[in-house]
Amino acid sequence: MSTDPARYAPMANAIRALSMDAVQAANSGHPGMPMGMADVATVLFSKFLRFDPSCPDWADRDRFVLSAGHGSMLIYSLLYLSGYDSPTIEDIRNFRKMGSVCAGHPENFLIPGVECTTGPLGQGLAMAVGMAIAERHLNATFGSDLVDHKTWVIAGDGCLMEGINHEAIGLAGTLKLSRLKVLWDDNRITIDGDTSLSTSEDIPARYRASGWDVFECDGHDFADIERALAAAAMSDKPSLVACRTIIGKGAPNKQGGHDVHGAPLGADEIAAAREVLGWPDEPFVIPGDVLADWRDAGLRGVKARQEWEGRVAADPQAEEFQRRMAGEIKGIDEAMAAFNGWLDGDASVATRKASENALNVLVPLIPEMIGGSADLTGSNNTKAKNQAPLTSEDYAGRYIYYGIREFGMAAAMNGMALHGGVIPYGGTFLIFSDYCRNAIRMSALQQTRAIYVLTHDSIGLGEDGPTHQPIEHIMSMRLIPNLNVFRPADLIETAECWLLALQTPETPSVLALTRQNLPQLRKEGDMQSARGAYRLKSAKAERKVILMATGSEVQVAVEVAERLESQGIGADVISAPCLELFEQQDEAYKRELLPDVEPSQILRVSIEAGVTWGWERYTMSNGLNVGIDRFGASAPAKDLFARFGFTADAIVPKILDKLST
Amino acid sequence: MSTDPARYAPMANAIRALSMDAVQAANSGHPGMPMGMADVATVLFSKFLRFDPSCPDWADRDRFVLSAGHGSMLIYSLLYLSGYDSPTIEDIRNFRKMGSVCAGHPENFLIPGVECTTGPLGQGLAMAVGMAIAERHLNATFGSDLVDHKTWVIAGDGCLMEGINHEAIGLAGTLKLSRLKVLWDDNRITIDGDTSLSTSEDIPARYRASGWDVFECDGHDFADIERALAAAAMSDKPSLVACRTIIGKGAPNKQGGHDVHGAPLGADEIAAAREVLGWPDEPFVIPGDVLADWRDAGLRGVKARQEWEGRVAADPQAEEFQRRMAGEIKGIDEAMAAFNGWLDGDASVATRKASENALNVLVPLIPEMIGGSADLTGSNNTKAKNQAPLTSEDYAGRYIYYGIREFGMAAAMNGMALHGGVIPYGGTFLIFSDYCRNAIRMSALQQTRAIYVLTHDSIGLGEDGPTHQPIEHIMSMRLIPNLNVFRPADLIETAECWLLALQTPETPSVLALTRQNLPQLRKEGDMQSARGAYRLKSAKAERKVILMATGSEVQVAVEVAERLESQGIGADVISAPCLELFEQQDEAYKRELLPDVEPSQILRVSIEAGVTWGWERYTMSNGLNVGIDRFGASAPAKDLFARFGFTADAIVPKILDKLST
Repeated sequence: MSTDPARYAPMANAIRALSMDAVQAANSGHPGMPMGMADVATVLFSKFLRFDPSCPDWADRDRFVLSAGHGSMLIYSLLYLSGYDSPTIEDIRNFRKMGSVCAGHPENFLIPGVECTTGPLGQGLAMAVGMAIAERHLNATFGSDLVDHKTWVIAGDGCLMEGINHEAIGLAGTLKLSRLKVLWDDNRITIDGDTSLSTSEDIPARYRASGWDVFECDGHDFADIERALAAAAMSDKPSLVACRTIIGKGAPNKQGGHDVHGAPLGADEIAAAREVLGWPDEPFVIPGDVLADWRDAGLRGVKARQEWEGRVAADPQAEEFQRRMAGEIKGIDEAMAAFNGWLDGDASVATRKASENALNVLVPLIPEMIGGSADLTGSNNTKAKNQAPLTSEDYAGRYIYYGIREFGMAAAMNGMALHGGVIPYGGTFLIFSDYCRNAIRMSALQQTRAIYVLTHDSIGLGEDGPTHQPIEHIMSMRLIPNLNVFRPADLIETAECWLLALQTPETPSVLALTRQNLPQLRKEGDMQSARGAYRLKSAKAERKVILMATGSEVQVAVEVAERLESQGIGADVISAPCLELFEQQDEAYKRELLPDVEPSQILRVSIEAGVTWGWERYTMSNGLNVGIDRFGASAPAKDLFARFGFTADAIVPKILDKLST
Repeated sequence: MSTDPARYAPMANAIRALSMDAVQAANSGHPGMPMGMADVATVLFSKFLRFDPSCPDWADRDRFVLSAGHGSMLIYSLLYLSGYDSPTIEDIRNFRKMGSVCAGHPENFLIPGVECTTGPLGQGLAMAVGMAIAERHLNATFGSDLVDHKTWVIAGDGCLMEGINHEAIGLAGTLKLSRLKVLWDDNRITIDGDTSLSTSEDIPARYRASGWDVFECDGHDFADIERALAAAAMSDKPSLVACRTIIGKGAPNKQGGHDVHGAPLGADEIAAAREVLGWPDEPFVIPGDVLADWRDAGLRGVKARQEWEGRVAADPQAEEFQRRMAGEIKGIDEAMAAFNGWLDGDASVATRKASENALNVLVPLIPEMIGGSADLTGSNNTKAKNQAPLTSEDYAGRYIYYGIREFGMAAAMNGMALHGGVIPYGGTFLIFSDYCRNAIRMSALQQTRAIYVLTHDSIGLGEDGPTHQPIEHIMSMRLIPNLNVFRPADLIETAECWLLALQTPETPSVLALTRQNLPQLRKEGDMQSARGAYRLKSAKAERKVILMATGSEVQVAVEVAERLESQGIGADVISAPCLELFEQQDEAYKRELLPDVEPSQILRVSIEAGVTWGWERYTMSNGLNVGIDRFGASAPAKDLFARFGFTADAIVPKILDKLST
């Protein structure tokens, strides 16, 4: 079947009609991109993409990522036209309205055919890099019979101008991800106007400099598109196809200009476009022959999917493969048993080192874990013993040297988790969570099991000084919905937090870990961390004080409590490794730890080497919040803890003062 | 004077000796980079950099940025050796210890000769882009007699691998910043090992693709370094000099490996290095002849500086130039008078539009303001009437099309502010503060007057959905020390917040602004926003409720209060455009707004379309926090406010319920 314009042009125009009409009905949205890329997308879905609308979770389907997510009507049109159950034409009619799965930007949790949530520019392509990594890893692990597919991306100028693009394509080039194919909507228009307003870059040259192949085509010539996509598909490098397009193609008076990017065309222009496109039908009505051609295109992959199912049925590794793709973990019990052996110990280790110890247990037991670090392997302690690197020569490896690319790493982790079959974890310093913060947010929004190992979690990192000392970071990440922020206090809590992080398939986790050694505080109890906060030490004398602390400050709280007890003042110590989990406990449990009595009866004190703002939730209006509400300084950790008041010497008098007023 | 090795080698070895000894004494730090780049830096400071240690704030000095800030001993050595007052040799002896200005990473607020704080990788170079923009702008405005200097950068592989590098060099290439010269420490080593572990990029090709010139040299051959720097200095493009170096050069057993990057060499290796370098002197002792050569190098710029002073004395624009460089603003009173004229109005405008109205007043009055947006000009409303673009053809313009480069923009703004003579403001969506969060933090840490115009500040942006709806962002930015986060409620507050932002030369500001229209609530009062929070409406009936709200939710609070009053329940409404400023008020003022009585007597209620966490600070344990603690959704704004309970209909019953218990 050739790319006969008589067949393809109406198919592409169906996308244009749906897009302009849906945006018009919503009275907001982005018609320019779907109309401009309609021809390219039609060729991609009709001749190249391997998919089966009747089976959107087919493990070996090609992945398709609309990185330029504002052009969401493109993917909604493609999914509907090619025969997916979702979205329906009703959903498209209600584009951008309450309750429609056709949200302003594509959301992976609303539509099965949407591989990832896109919208924050640049991240779709960077997630696709992660998908392509997962594909190659599973291919190397399970063989081509089970896994052998491409990852296709449509990206715009915004995706390519964002910094994350540099990180993503650098990683893809180094790992030689030849199954990754990016179609660049080269329309030379951004919101502010012509791209020449803000960029003079030779994009093909940049991609080639990063180890990519580059192809070009006229994005409105079906035969030329097919030629370029075929060449890209054959390339043994990650490939960029520069598709020269006219934004808003088909809107005769507005196409090619920036006004068509992000606003409805208006009734007059839509009427004119119907003329130009030869599209007399009412909005949301697709002529039967055009829809039939689209549904034919949607059936292309059925046979491939059935053959794949046949191979799976015959494959000795099928069960293990399907377990991993289903995201079901084995090995938790064995790991817990190993960790329980640590209770008898008396290890004084940094929690980053405790995390390494935990990984030495977990990584062999859980083969789907793939680790890495943004060039801080020895500092983040993210590499387990005998964990081989994942490289372009050995995709079966399970440790990725991500380079100095925090944002690219985090987005790749999202892509890996979304692809399925792997559980990604990756490390950097906690301070550099700033660099990848929106990808962490996207983990939370997309409900991926990405695990962030963020070490050097406070002024306790010492000499590197304020640029490297997180102050606001732990509390600020607690504010992100659907993200568990763990800050364990010792070896045991660290192991528990790892187990908890692995067991929330729809919630990402942050492990905030120390550079400095911490004493082992826990000698008993299974998985106390699971309730988010628990009483580590009960008052001996009459309880007058409740100390609530996290991470490296729990040891300080214990010392404060001992000093208070020595003066006849009873003090509980609550360790709170995960406030999100504590929030989920029932009221009775919360009240057991934090009785609902006046501060004059029991003083509540928080101790955390970070901002105090937020701790009032637990300490009440008249409590005491010990923290640091300014930038840190460069000095040895011990001196800093003394300077900023995180010692029993500094805290006990404050408590006594509070108690006496 | 040629680059005679007999003179230059000892000068460079002085840097090596100071660096290895200071790191050893601190027992932490990074000797590899200063030792590797010692030769290049010696040539730069001896033959190219225009500076005068006796006058570190000389306005027309060349700027020098050590982007690879972990190599801080390089800049401390250079400043001390060339004759700056700070740091002293004592400071260097106390490198990384409490109280020394020689912090782990260079801090602009500790040492006058440090142009900017570096450490978070990639940002130094990106700030240098901003410095080079400011230089060209002031040159175009005041002429070459007053401003005509270069900006030199030393950057490492980390700086070049980070995504922000792509944004920074793209911006520099497009603006043809020919005075920007970057010396790349091409040592082929990162923390994790050889750069080939994580990158395969052809860096020169990438820079050329972005409109840069690229030169190369042997970073340990003085003549070759001089040749390459001379060629770069002459180039009419921004230029990269790839300096092929050996990391840790001079440490015979460790040089060239990654162990030398970030740890002390150890006593044995230091002894061996002393042998190799022919450096018998005790730690921190510089031989008299070597120091004399360095001090000579430091005197090179005195004449140029004196000549410049002569030109300034004769220049008719000198007073205006010096006012701008001193950061003293004129025009505030005129602006305030204009804004007071708005009190009589009844404008229902979005605060982003109110901001545009304010800019239409401010930009003509305050010529040092330079605006811009990361490709959202029409959405951020950041461009004032008749504000001409700053382009490679017209550096005198005052509006920058930053492109889709939020992080690059924010870092450039920091560089512009640090250069002095301009006040940068720049826009993006509030959600994309995530993309540039660490640069905003660096504004705060470096105490720069950068003003961030962050629009579309809540679910009120509507249809774009959860990827674009900030939930946690306002509260999370409040946690950053030394950052004023403004969220004005109407036209008047927006104007006031602009005036406040302009008047804090050492504190950056965020203006969080709505997409949607808001009624004008304020009809009287000068600069009420200056106290951070104020009583907008006093209870008529006996006061039982205090409503505290920000931005678009203040109108909701007013409506809630009216409903309560109609039931005989007195309610104050406090508008809180800036909680940081409110925190700075005296206790009496705070108590006047929020009397210290039990919640059972006066119920405190917060209303903000963001996370509730943090509001307990003001509402006390038993208060009511109206907010949104989940991701948003895609729908029209009005539907979303109803869905998520930001209406009087939803809030009044909750308050009544609280009051009755």
